[in-house]
Amino acid sequence: MAALHQQLAKDCLLLGHFPLSRLLLMNDSNYPWFILVPDRDDVSEIYQLADADQALLLQESSALSACLMQVFNGDKLNVAALGNIVPQLHVHHIVRYKNDSAWPAPVWGKFPARPYTEEQLAALTQQVLPALPANFVASNG
Amino acid sequence: MAALHQQLAKDCLLLGHFPLSRLLLMNDSNYPWFILVPDRDDVSEIYQLADADQALLLQESSALSACLMQVFNGDKLNVAALGNIVPQLHVHHIVRYKNDSAWPAPVWGKFPARPYTEEQLAALTQQVLPALPANFVASNG
Repeated sequence: MAALHQQLAKDCLLLGHFPLSRLLLMNDSNYPWFILVPDRDDVSEIYQLADADQALLLQESSALSACLMQVFNGDKLNVAALGNIVPQLHVHHIVRYKNDSAWPAPVWGKFPARPYTEEQLAALTQQVLPALPANFVASNG
Repeated sequence: MAALHQQLAKDCLLLGHFPLSRLLLMNDSNYPWFILVPDRDDVSEIYQLADADQALLLQESSALSACLMQVFNGDKLNVAALGNIVPQLHVHHIVRYKNDSAWPAPVWGKFPARPYTEEQLAALTQQVLPALPANFVASNG
């Protein structure tokens, strides 16, 4: 697979992968925050992907979105490809609640990350992983 | 067409429409900031659109993205569907520069909007409109 940018590797936990994209969990328990990283080198923008890859990314993003909103019962989903700091194309999927700490502002730069405890992480993955579509392959460990 | 949320109508200028989406210009000269609003009622999330509409939105978003990056020669494009304040589905496309006032932070909530002058607006639309794909229909006036 394409190398993961060191900042993503540092901030996130790898959950597994879809046909095109790695699925990462941002290690910040302030919000259920997931990131798709298409496994392609040297791509910073969605429109730079080949058409078939764009369609795959959309499919993976929408399936993930529906799953997250069902599992976490959020008030809103924030989906964003920003990349001002990490140029490797990655698409944020953040479940938002009207009573979360940053609402209604976007989450970036608002609060320091609150890493998950091992117990929280185990509970979260037990909730999310079985709900993901059949084309998701979980990582070992 | 579906009614435009009053906040979008207040903050933006209507440039025209693609087959699925209206194209708005955020009236903030701090950044080249464009918004696609799919013409569907009661949809807040991309995944809630029918599959064919999702594909259309992707196509319109990517064509717009490529056009904007060519016209404005940006360092990065920020593409985002947030909607914490305005629930009507709308997708931001913001051209970013390493020397813009908010870089590398996201633009939302950073600085008050700086409305375009008539001259700036005329110059911008003369630059952008001819570069848009053939399926774009400009508004009158």
